[in-house]
Amino acid sequence: MLDTLFQNADILTMDDARPSIKGGFVGVKNGKIVDVGQDRPLEDAKRTIDCAKKVLMPGLINTHAHTAMCVMRGYADDYTLQEWLFDKVFPVEARLDERAVVAGARLGFAEMLRTGTTSVSDMYYHQTAVAELALAAGIRASLCNAALALGGFDPENDRSMLETRGLIADFHGAGNGRIKADVSLHAEYTSPPEVWRYVAELGKKHGLNMHVHLSETKKEHDDCVARCGKTPARRFAENGVFDLKTIAAHCVWVSGDDMELLAKYGVSCAHNPVSNLKLASGVAPVREMLARGVNVSLGTDGCCSNNTHDLFEEIKLAALLAKGTSLDPTAMPAYEALKLATVNGARAQGRENEVGRIAEGMEADIILVDLDSPMTRPFYSPESAVVFSATGERVCLTMVQGKVLYENGEFATIDIERAYDEVERYAVKLVLG
Amino acid sequence: MLDTLFQNADILTMDDARPSIKGGFVGVKNGKIVDVGQDRPLEDAKRTIDCAKKVLMPGLINTHAHTAMCVMRGYADDYTLQEWLFDKVFPVEARLDERAVVAGARLGFAEMLRTGTTSVSDMYYHQTAVAELALAAGIRASLCNAALALGGFDPENDRSMLETRGLIADFHGAGNGRIKADVSLHAEYTSPPEVWRYVAELGKKHGLNMHVHLSETKKEHDDCVARCGKTPARRFAENGVFDLKTIAAHCVWVSGDDMELLAKYGVSCAHNPVSNLKLASGVAPVREMLARGVNVSLGTDGCCSNNTHDLFEEIKLAALLAKGTSLDPTAMPAYEALKLATVNGARAQGRENEVGRIAEGMEADIILVDLDSPMTRPFYSPESAVVFSATGERVCLTMVQGKVLYENGEFATIDIERAYDEVERYAVKLVLG
Repeated sequence: MLDTLFQNADILTMDDARPSIKGGFVGVKNGKIVDVGQDRPLEDAKRTIDCAKKVLMPGLINTHAHTAMCVMRGYADDYTLQEWLFDKVFPVEARLDERAVVAGARLGFAEMLRTGTTSVSDMYYHQTAVAELALAAGIRASLCNAALALGGFDPENDRSMLETRGLIADFHGAGNGRIKADVSLHAEYTSPPEVWRYVAELGKKHGLNMHVHLSETKKEHDDCVARCGKTPARRFAENGVFDLKTIAAHCVWVSGDDMELLAKYGVSCAHNPVSNLKLASGVAPVREMLARGVNVSLGTDGCCSNNTHDLFEEIKLAALLAKGTSLDPTAMPAYEALKLATVNGARAQGRENEVGRIAEGMEADIILVDLDSPMTRPFYSPESAVVFSATGERVCLTMVQGKVLYENGEFATIDIERAYDEVERYAVKLVLG
Repeated sequence: MLDTLFQNADILTMDDARPSIKGGFVGVKNGKIVDVGQDRPLEDAKRTIDCAKKVLMPGLINTHAHTAMCVMRGYADDYTLQEWLFDKVFPVEARLDERAVVAGARLGFAEMLRTGTTSVSDMYYHQTAVAELALAAGIRASLCNAALALGGFDPENDRSMLETRGLIADFHGAGNGRIKADVSLHAEYTSPPEVWRYVAELGKKHGLNMHVHLSETKKEHDDCVARCGKTPARRFAENGVFDLKTIAAHCVWVSGDDMELLAKYGVSCAHNPVSNLKLASGVAPVREMLARGVNVSLGTDGCCSNNTHDLFEEIKLAALLAKGTSLDPTAMPAYEALKLATVNGARAQGRENEVGRIAEGMEADIILVDLDSPMTRPFYSPESAVVFSATGERVCLTMVQGKVLYENGEFATIDIERAYDEVERYAVKLVLG
């Protein structure tokens, strides 16, 4: 007996062997996809969901977020990067305590599930508390606390190292592998190489992945070259950082040589098109990275520079920017753009055998996109409708590991009123100071 | 007695004298805004609408659309411009009859009202039938059929002239000024100067505005300069086109001199950021145009190059592109971006004394944006929430001339099931051929 049967669905499998199935079915059992096909499954199901006018596809994967920053959603727009970071974000972050961060993460996870994101790579603080929340909320999460060590580094007492060890000890692999600990370096310019080597060793010892910011702004990239005669990517590679499976967020200013390095080491670029435009960092050379064999995935970055967690927007903008900046309208077709948020995201997280495709044996991280709206009818192909017409508001059902976490306005695992209350009555007060 | 009272609203008036009112009210009577304030109105109302957690603002103004093209939504993505236009769009348009165009316009108007657009400048075919539809649907519309005359021009029998005369005779000023006829030239390269002068004279005689495409692609702009030694804007100006109040759509490749001309003649640029990226035309120099005093408004273009009529997306993208392409995050703050879609749009349409602001004496074209969602909470300022977090799906009420046309999923004047049926059972068949 299947747990859930989705039937009569337009399926975007994101599996190159059989990219789409019209009017097909997906059977889910024990948290996994056990049957995908065109006609009828062999087994009956406890629950059958009719998917007429809906697209069934893999849950989206957000490979670079600072989820709890949604407590600052719209708090600091339209500032210079310097003012934004030093006068607005850093002082607020110094005031945010664990309760505020958990509040933000709860609302952020709700927003992600609401808009079809089932897996997130999250870099922030108080991550053991956030891990506990993610475990209960049912979302898939790879969590890290980035090392920042400008004024000396004591590995035994450093906050990020303590928290990383806590994540490893208590949460790595929890929820049948749903929760993972990553190691993380904030960026090339915020810690010295001995910290990088230490963090990389720690990650290697526990079989963890790495999550860093890389060449987000021109200044950061050029300063590094002026200071060391080498790019941030080159320095990271030479110091063992890329020996771990790595997500490098942004990569706006990477050089051609850097791209070769990223490809060679299997580093994934987490492309954040909205944030990079909003903070005026620029546009990452996504097409060139893909052409050189770099795995490119998508991220939203924090909600203080976006200001949403809706990955549909990143998917469309990634396609639009690839076309508009190359003056080639065939660049990044709809299906390629969708890959960034699914199969490529899974590969970036080291979860390519778990999620990112609708195929037998994969974990059942599935979303339904309801195309029955004036914004999405008529439609000629599901990938075009999903990429160029839909927003995350069109998601009507979000399932992770076979469990429905969001459906038609209702959250199964998150008390949404509590999420609002904790953010607006507690965290926002700390933001405003 | 007021007809409608909106109370307890966060109001974005878009009136520089008093840009926003927290917890204010708006009174509507006989299709007009008669009272705006902070406390309580003097009169009672037939209907009172509580606006807690909602932003009240002017309806959005789409100054460049080919509304009926939503029958081709997602029909032709990711092609070169040449293939897209000559192999896909033009052959389909040759097959679309009046019934199909009206079907597309019905669905397109529904989508616009659903996503908060209350006024549209629409350039397409079968416009007398579309005018009748717009009159009944209650949307504000400035309609034109663009002159295209590559193979000779007989003003008495030319299709666009016949239809323009029909619009003038039967619809100009209908619905208390809600429906207007514009004159229109498709573009510099699709008709000779004698046609421009004829059309401009016709417009002048009837006091109409002009709507053209201008310097959308580099090729079109450069070809004109190579052919005539002058830019398209210069040629239009020299032939009396800009003697009429004009909307020039796109303006991606206008020169500095062109911008001076546009400012001097009071020509408005209708900026179409999504379409210009999707067709890989480029990014219009919006910031420079605004700095030189050009009125810049927003458009969606047709749904075959977008693929939605959601102006919220254009507003956000206009802000993001202004920041990202200038590498200056202070470029185009939220409030400035909103102006493009409201006051500037009204000015472009020659309706600045009718709509675009929430102020006493203006027509009651009003929308409510519901911020009660995980994507839009918390919020620190209504303009940031509306520009950077909301999509058109957050619109819960759309009013034109004091009449509620859309509210919480229901359309008052459009039979949405008929709209879907006519598009999907009739028009789509013509599209597919």
